[in-house]
Amino acid sequence: MLPMQDPALALKELDRVAKLPGIRGRYLATNINGLDLDDKRFWDIYTRVEELGWTIFLHPVETIGPERTRRFFLRNLLGNPFDTCIAAACLIFGGVLDAFPSLEINLPHAGGAFPGLIGRLDHGTRVRPELNHMLKLPSEYMRRFTYDIIGHSQQVNMNLIQMVGADRILLGSDYCFDMGLSDPIDTIDQLDSLTEDDRDLILGKTAARLLHLD
Amino acid sequence: MLPMQDPALALKELDRVAKLPGIRGRYLATNINGLDLDDKRFWDIYTRVEELGWTIFLHPVETIGPERTRRFFLRNLLGNPFDTCIAAACLIFGGVLDAFPSLEINLPHAGGAFPGLIGRLDHGTRVRPELNHMLKLPSEYMRRFTYDIIGHSQQVNMNLIQMVGADRILLGSDYCFDMGLSDPIDTIDQLDSLTEDDRDLILGKTAARLLHLD
Repeated sequence: MLPMQDPALALKELDRVAKLPGIRGRYLATNINGLDLDDKRFWDIYTRVEELGWTIFLHPVETIGPERTRRFFLRNLLGNPFDTCIAAACLIFGGVLDAFPSLEINLPHAGGAFPGLIGRLDHGTRVRPELNHMLKLPSEYMRRFTYDIIGHSQQVNMNLIQMVGADRILLGSDYCFDMGLSDPIDTIDQLDSLTEDDRDLILGKTAARLLHLD
Repeated sequence: MLPMQDPALALKELDRVAKLPGIRGRYLATNINGLDLDDKRFWDIYTRVEELGWTIFLHPVETIGPERTRRFFLRNLLGNPFDTCIAAACLIFGGVLDAFPSLEINLPHAGGAFPGLIGRLDHGTRVRPELNHMLKLPSEYMRRFTYDIIGHSQQVNMNLIQMVGADRILLGSDYCFDMGLSDPIDTIDQLDSLTEDDRDLILGKTAARLLHLD
């Protein structure tokens, strides 16, 4: 277990780098040394990121249940998308997306396990007392996130585009890792039934907007 | 932590109940007190179940990373589908499906997180040394499982049917739990573009075949 990070120092560092040329967003792990992303200790960070108009790009580091994912490279293959899904659920159920209505958050690996479990999250929100505080369904928050196109399956990628809309999808590469795409643009070219406009959004237009390059 | 179960005693019990009238399949947890389902201690059970022509119906009990899923009912909403996905991955990567080519295994909750992560599992199998032993891709094993229709989303359910074929989908209810379907047949009726034949398969024909009732 790493020592707890200091959100006050992180905020100070954020203010420092925000003045550097070319900085347009920030990375965040899907949990911070075991603390989920709705923990109130991180809310000052969200306040500042929202003010800056940045996007938070999530990516897993330490992932859920490492003892169950030791073999077969499952820590990456499943631990990563599981942890991204927990992050999305905690940002929704823990009120972060409501409290910061302009905050942009990008989920890696085509949203991980989150899009495939959206029905179960919705149903739980309808029937469970633990989620009585929710005024909207998780599926109504799906378009609050953006997603990359690293699903490694045409069917998975197209299903995601149909669920959230092409304007919430960004080209991703995961360069230079073996779990990345060897040819990201070819991945887009292989998607059936994509309009030219959708293609333009995914290939750069939405990224340009999020990173204030347009 | 519960004490380790005794597979030899379980086999004895299996032989006892196999002679009882009406027994046509068996339930198994998605892990056995933390041991994944490809553990060699369980292979004698698989041998006998395959001989009997039964289906193993999986369902999670204890799930991965309980400390990360304490809040928001996430132990059920995410822990369950995560654990089903780990079970499927271990049955594939651990060689169980190859060693028992006729073994039928049903994954609950529309396969949990497994169908949505199949691209990532395939890509990992292509590029990672930990999976050098694999002769086929995980997606080639998808039809070795059957799946219920408890995805709580038309899009999730239809996507699964398109991935594995209607003949591998069974009506499920999760009766009598609040996370179940209040009207399973209506769930099928609401699926667009389902042929009459597909509907018959899902509503009972495939179950009748698996349970030797036809």
